[in-house]
Order: sequence, then structure tokens, then C-alpha cells
Amino acid sequence: MSDHGPQPPSFDEAFRQSFEQLLIWRRDVRRFRRDPVDAGLIERLIALSCLAPSVGNAQPWRFVTVADPARRQAVRASFLDCNADALNDYQGERAKLYAGLKLSGLDDAPVHLAVFSDHGTEAGHGLGRKTMPQTMDFSVVCAVYSFWLAARMHGLGVGWVSILDPEAVRLALEVPAVWSLVAYLCVGLPVEDNELPELVRFGWQDREAFESVLFRR
Amino acid sequence: MSDHGPQPPSFDEAFRQSFEQLLIWRRDVRRFRRDPVDAGLIERLIALSCLAPSVGNAQPWRFVTVADPARRQAVRASFLDCNADALNDYQGERAKLYAGLKLSGLDDAPVHLAVFSDHGTEAGHGLGRKTMPQTMDFSVVCAVYSFWLAARMHGLGVGWVSILDPEAVRLALEVPAVWSLVAYLCVGLPVEDNELPELVRFGWQDREAFESVLFRR
Repeated sequence: MSDHGPQPPSFDEAFRQSFEQLLIWRRDVRRFRRDPVDAGLIERLIALSCLAPSVGNAQPWRFVTVADPARRQAVRASFLDCNADALNDYQGERAKLYAGLKLSGLDDAPVHLAVFSDHGTEAGHGLGRKTMPQTMDFSVVCAVYSFWLAARMHGLGVGWVSILDPEAVRLALEVPAVWSLVAYLCVGLPVEDNELPELVRFGWQDREAFESVLFRR
Repeated sequence: MSDHGPQPPSFDEAFRQSFEQLLIWRRDVRRFRRDPVDAGLIERLIALSCLAPSVGNAQPWRFVTVADPARRQAVRASFLDCNADALNDYQGERAKLYAGLKLSGLDDAPVHLAVFSDHGTEAGHGLGRKTMPQTMDFSVVCAVYSFWLAARMHGLGVGWVSILDPEAVRLALEVPAVWSLVAYLCVGLPVEDNELPELVRFGWQDREAFESVLFRR
């Protein structure tokens, strides 16, 4: 370890326990209070997100705050279209269950944040992505998840809306064609906190047993 | 908020500052000490990672610890092939710089962990991924990044190796064809801690200005 420069932090048991609580209570929030959120806080959270790992240090994340009502309306229209189409894939009880789920907080969330992956960036000089080009988008996902955790730490809820036509969102936001939508986030104060995902509580999908996801070779 | 059940945590300023330090000092580690790592700790970190968000709560992450020397050798061979091939894409000073980078810790890291996305799982019942099927892999990335942060919190370094042929890795580990490789992780005690990414320190790619990644619409 270098004998100059800042010293690395150590993380004590109290921090570890709190971090576990952060993971446990994170949630994908779809029910928001309409109270405004400080724009400076959102920017600080985005700045923290830029500390995420990225392939070749390409930092392909592009954050777009969406405030314009017409643009928001176009995103909402895409959600409604895609959600109606998705409902058609289910039958019987499963269809009833799907129709009863609240799958986005687009109407109430005071902050909308679209996050894109810039496939055209020269940053990173291609390092690490020749055989796995999807690592560009994966880098952006790490930034999105950083934002999510940091937001929750400040009492804000985040909901990731994926029931969207990515091209419709891109057009609505007038961003370059070489940007690929990774996530459309609703952000705001949550109406409630829960330890369990809504999809578990409402009977859509329970948690998997640990044994079914861990393998040894 | 429910008046029964566990109460949600709040995160104080001390936690927030430590969490920021965790993001700041995370690093993609390629230089490991060979000291063994407690297998129970790795399992606990994987269990924490399963708290990550997933599309439709599909939980498509499949964690494979790789201990068998022949399998590790096959992965290392794929890295060497792909890295040599990647080097051919660079010329002049950039090629010299690339050749001097250490891009994996496969030789020394005591723990190898492959993480796949199970495209065949029925969990989640397709919810949320009709228009953006890549959200299955994105869910797995959130689990990988959870593992990374939790490992760093315990003093462990993680390095994400993407200079691999995903199909070669899948075959080496004999996992189902419907599993897609998301990340191959090296895990162990880091030789050193650093505030800055190695790719910044060695002049491959500097950090981007905040202004170049934030947009308003």
C-alpha cells in the first residue's frame, strides 16, 4: 500500500449491518408522494453513480432528467401501450393478477430519470468489450443500481420501469440514435416502506430458494 | 406504513459518508494475495446479492463457484486467447500501453465466481421483459454489483473479467445452454487499495467530466 495519499477506509460491523438493511429495504417503488425532491440532491446522487465500475473505464452512462410534460406524456403513452400488450399474454387468474398490479409510478413520481448507454463513446478505447459488448450496458446498470441504493439511503424511492418501447423513449427525449435505453427511473418519496417486494406480497412471484441459485464446479 | 412488522431503517450521516467511501474505494482488482478466503463468507455475500432487484422478480442469477483446476485452466486459456486477439486491434503507443496492463487476476485470486443469467427460468412469468428482454441480464448485473460492494465492505477485492469467450466459459463449467454468462469474477484480498482506477493511473482512460454525462429534457 502506498505510504502517501489518502488512506483507505475500513468498514465496521455497524456499517455492514446498515448496508445489509439498505439492500433488504431497497424496493422497486411504484407508489410515490408528489412532494418535490431537491434537484441538487438528484445531481449529487448522479455524481455518486458515476463512481460505478465500467468496462475499460468507458463510463458510457448518460443521465437525462425528464421534466417536460409533453415528453413525460409520451413516455407514459408508451408504458400504457406496452402494458396493455403485455396483459394480452396472460390468461385467467394470472391475467387478473397482472391487471391488478401497479407497475409504474409515472403519474406521481416528481422526478423522472432516463439512463442511456452511449454505444458511440470512444472512452475506454474498446478495452474489455470485444467478446462481450453487452458489458457497456452492464456498466450503466451498475450506475443505475448505485443511484438506487444512494437514493434509498436518503429516504427516496426508485422504481425501474421497463414496460416501455425503448425507441419511443429515445425519440421522446430526442437523444442520439447511438444511445441505448437502459433504464427509465421514477424517483420520489415512497408512500410506504416494505421489507418485501410488491410482487411477492401480491402473489406474483415468490423469492427463490438459495439452493436453487448456487452451484459448484 | 403498516403498524406491525419490522420498522424500516433510517440511514444517518455517518452511514451515508461511509457508503460514499465504499463507492469511492471499490476498485476493479486484478492484483490479489493468494491467501484463502472463507467459503462461508462467500456464501453470505452471495445470499446478500440475491436481495438485488430483478425484472418481474425473476431472480435469474445463477452463481457458480469455480474451484476445479482444469476448469480454471480452461477459463484462463480463453482469457489469453481473447486478450491476444484484442491486443491486435491496437497500434503504436496504445498497443504498448494495452500490453502493459494487467487485465485479470485469474492466476492469483483464491476465489473464482462465474455469474450467469438463466434465460430459461419461468420465475417472474415474463413480467417486465417483453419489450426489454435485456433486463434479465441487467438484473444479474445488479446482483454482481451487490456482491462487489459487499465484498469490498469485508475487505475483499473483486475483479470483473470480460475478456473471455462466454461460450468457452459456459462449456468449461458445464452449465445449461440457456444460461448466459454475465460476469466472471476474481475474488480475494487485494495486494493494495487505491482511490483511483488502474486504467486512470496507467493513462488508459481518465474520468469523464460530470457535465458530459448529465442532460436535461
